[in-house]
Amino acid sequence: MSEDSLNSALRYHCYPRPGKLEIKATKPLANQLDLSLAYSPGVAEPCREIAADPAKAADYTARGNLVAVVTNGTAVLGLGAIGGLASKPVMEGKAVLFKKFADIDVFDIEVDETDPARFIEIVAGLEPTFGGINLEDIKAPDCFIIEEGLKQRMKIPVFHDDQHGTAIVVSAAILNALQLVGKDIGQVRLVASGAGAAALACLDLLVGLGMNKANIVVTDIAGVVYQGRQEEMDPYKARYAIDTGARTLKEVMPGADIFLGLSAGGVLKPQFLQQMAERPIILALANPVPEIMPDEARAVRPDALIATGRSDYPNQVNNVLCFPFLFRGTLDCGASEINTVMKLACVRAIAGLAQVQASDVVQSAYGGQQLQFGPDYLIPKPFDPRLIEHIAPAVAEAAMESGVAQRPIADLQAYREGLQQQVFRTGMTMKPVFDAARSEPRRVVYAEGEEPKVLQLIPQVVEQGIARPILIGRRAVVERRIRELGLALEIGRDLQLVDPQDHPRYPDYCKRLFQIMARKGCRPPRRASCCGPTPACLPRCCCWREMQMR
Amino acid sequence: MSEDSLNSALRYHCYPRPGKLEIKATKPLANQLDLSLAYSPGVAEPCREIAADPAKAADYTARGNLVAVVTNGTAVLGLGAIGGLASKPVMEGKAVLFKKFADIDVFDIEVDETDPARFIEIVAGLEPTFGGINLEDIKAPDCFIIEEGLKQRMKIPVFHDDQHGTAIVVSAAILNALQLVGKDIGQVRLVASGAGAAALACLDLLVGLGMNKANIVVTDIAGVVYQGRQEEMDPYKARYAIDTGARTLKEVMPGADIFLGLSAGGVLKPQFLQQMAERPIILALANPVPEIMPDEARAVRPDALIATGRSDYPNQVNNVLCFPFLFRGTLDCGASEINTVMKLACVRAIAGLAQVQASDVVQSAYGGQQLQFGPDYLIPKPFDPRLIEHIAPAVAEAAMESGVAQRPIADLQAYREGLQQQVFRTGMTMKPVFDAARSEPRRVVYAEGEEPKVLQLIPQVVEQGIARPILIGRRAVVERRIRELGLALEIGRDLQLVDPQDHPRYPDYCKRLFQIMARKGCRPPRRASCCGPTPACLPRCCCWREMQMR
Repeated sequence: MSEDSLNSALRYHCYPRPGKLEIKATKPLANQLDLSLAYSPGVAEPCREIAADPAKAADYTARGNLVAVVTNGTAVLGLGAIGGLASKPVMEGKAVLFKKFADIDVFDIEVDETDPARFIEIVAGLEPTFGGINLEDIKAPDCFIIEEGLKQRMKIPVFHDDQHGTAIVVSAAILNALQLVGKDIGQVRLVASGAGAAALACLDLLVGLGMNKANIVVTDIAGVVYQGRQEEMDPYKARYAIDTGARTLKEVMPGADIFLGLSAGGVLKPQFLQQMAERPIILALANPVPEIMPDEARAVRPDALIATGRSDYPNQVNNVLCFPFLFRGTLDCGASEINTVMKLACVRAIAGLAQVQASDVVQSAYGGQQLQFGPDYLIPKPFDPRLIEHIAPAVAEAAMESGVAQRPIADLQAYREGLQQQVFRTGMTMKPVFDAARSEPRRVVYAEGEEPKVLQLIPQVVEQGIARPILIGRRAVVERRIRELGLALEIGRDLQLVDPQDHPRYPDYCKRLFQIMARKGCRPPRRASCCGPTPACLPRCCCWREMQMR
Repeated sequence: MSEDSLNSALRYHCYPRPGKLEIKATKPLANQLDLSLAYSPGVAEPCREIAADPAKAADYTARGNLVAVVTNGTAVLGLGAIGGLASKPVMEGKAVLFKKFADIDVFDIEVDETDPARFIEIVAGLEPTFGGINLEDIKAPDCFIIEEGLKQRMKIPVFHDDQHGTAIVVSAAILNALQLVGKDIGQVRLVASGAGAAALACLDLLVGLGMNKANIVVTDIAGVVYQGRQEEMDPYKARYAIDTGARTLKEVMPGADIFLGLSAGGVLKPQFLQQMAERPIILALANPVPEIMPDEARAVRPDALIATGRSDYPNQVNNVLCFPFLFRGTLDCGASEINTVMKLACVRAIAGLAQVQASDVVQSAYGGQQLQFGPDYLIPKPFDPRLIEHIAPAVAEAAMESGVAQRPIADLQAYREGLQQQVFRTGMTMKPVFDAARSEPRRVVYAEGEEPKVLQLIPQVVEQGIARPILIGRRAVVERRIRELGLALEIGRDLQLVDPQDHPRYPDYCKRLFQIMARKGCRPPRRASCCGPTPACLPRCCCWREMQMR
């Protein structure tokens, strides 16, 4: 990231208040009556009800919609073992994604414990607090032990997103790609680069979908995972060890139908692609630099179907396609776990959605991009508003059919319709507007140029290039506020400033305004100075305000 | 509570969404740029900063303003050991109090663990998540072990509100009462009824303020706590055991200056008061039924100063006077603990505020009650908007002076002024309005009587008696919505309904309206049926809307 982007990220996290989430009361709490309902003595009633029937916690508390995003910070993004505290920004980010995409409330829980057994003790103890657990950024193989341990101990869904969220979206992409190239999942050969938690979870789910385990070759930093290998091995990886003399990625690529990269940038050399099977499927998911850049791959293999983790290429494999909606369906039917049936239903719902003709709304949300099922549109886009209504009901239905739903949904159709109304659509609604604005940036005048709220949005306007901002305000005040707010703005470079205090045409404007407005019943300015105005008197001048309202 | 109140409490907790709190994103998250700042790749920056300097977690995450309200549900309100899950409504209630009174974010954490040592392991493991720990509703003596254990383990403030919050408010009330009756804290005799966590914490703090331990007699369910007693004893209580032949509360009351009741309703018989010292101070804090009702006490001892835990009598001893503001000051200076110096500063700030002439704002917030320091105004009211600006800076200053503030506040005056602007004042602003309305309830017409939002507020209007509501809406729709929303409303009894579909004077009204509005440039109704109107066409009728806006 550039210096400016770094500062933007820090500023974003710092202002106007540190961090990315806060608590909000969902009930009025304005007077003594509210207090007597929310707290003593009224609160005793729901307590008694829950004590008598624990299932009622979903009726009287936030628990039924509350997920813990839990980590110990042992494998954070590309940052490694930075610990719980330093991973808090990532967990808060995950929390707001849950909220924005599926209206699920999340407490981010960072745990100071790297020992899996003790970590399990801590998290399992929190069961009364939460309706579900989403494990995050925990290193392998600890994450397997922790997930398994918590699943056994807890009666609420436990999900390790890095494994299963990735596996679900990858599987959806592969299913659709195979359909396009007309190959049978039971026949294709897959080479995986990377043998971490995510890669192994992908392989497990693909095998569940019918892939032949004998057709899978795993490679990692030490080369091919073969039977008898000693270096960098663990029992989880060993399940995919094969009997072979091949030792390098290069050696195992010939004939492969699918490359699944969850490893490191640039490990897949263009020449490795030459001997892949016809119409190969390449998922290069290392982020931000994929195992091979799509352009490089396409240069060698124009017949390839390519997906990455990046938003600036087609077919972005992004967990946000899965976790908000999977949990939405899971929580809404009170599922006690997220089982394989539910995961497979989720895979099929995501894959299926890409094959449904996108509505005008979705098309326009993506600025007129052709969203037609095909090599460049294998899976839905993250901001597709239809995701929630397709995935959540499918997951809930699977939970009910597999007998784990404790609050079955009687009318799935009504449930689906309710979800449509519940989505946060600001992003979808505004995106085409922003895109249109960006294509031909206009000058936009911000009349309240001294206001912190206005100043805080200017960097976004500048960075996104959606307008050329002109601020009206006193230079000294605007400069001071820019400094105080820590904004990376420079008057002249990023924005134009019009200072009413020294603008030559200002008195004329005011006189003209009064001439116009006087005939509409406007009182004359209250002070003689008003029409050779000082900013202090302007807001009180009635003709000025009427002008602003026009 | 009455049947209706019970239903109100359950309804309040259930609708429009279960529970009392939700998560809210504090940053925009509307587009790809926001996402890239909030999550990958921008989020890596604050992570790196915190990894390099853990103190920066307060700048880039919500942690510095985030408190855990933690319980295992072993001693909840008057409900006893109902467990973590059933205590969740209480903890959510506490969370929203923190938020509303002091803008502190709270995750309520219910722990499924009654063993103190294991409870400590679990909570201590959460240190990276939180900026402070507020223990709640944990039974004695476990709460002492847990508080001590967590204080030793954690580098963030740990506070058991049931003990220390109560002790602080009680001490403030006693200090002020002693000043009024002109007695010296070092000389007075105190009899405590109750020897639980709260009572013992009160005694400890009073001793810290100068009370002579030899002048304290503790009684509990088994009578006087005397040296050598075997029944119902623990080491914490034993510290206040005295060498006496007295065995009952009745026997130790004669000559007492102060009665401190934190036990059970009605245990203090009126006749016990007769031989108390002159101008006795009676704190009867059992809730909802105090150890003695104020009226009974006053009948026997008209010279007594009386405080209870109830909002319907003067001098309500309520922890909400303390914990939001104590934590506000603690968090704002990054205090690593809440020490005795800070607690004493808090006591003095609360006591001092009662002696400051209340402003017109506060007076009016309490409906014109005389808030003049005296026997009926020993401590401030819970909704006094000055609490935050008096208490938080005093606490922060004490933290700085005692060397525990990790982010000292350079300019306490500026800090105080900032706090004044930050308070949630809706309750304060609206209370006098409600009071005035209640004194002479008028008929209020709700034009959108079919709207769920309108229907949901009617029960409050009815219960508070602030108006006699008249709803305009179709009877069938209103009845169905009342049923769907689970509201305890009966048309006729609680509200009057005017159904436009069958109101005889309606066509005449419409004609008259058009006659008036036509001269103001209003278009005629678009449909012939409009002035013999159907509800469906009304919202589209321009004269109707103009009429509503008048």
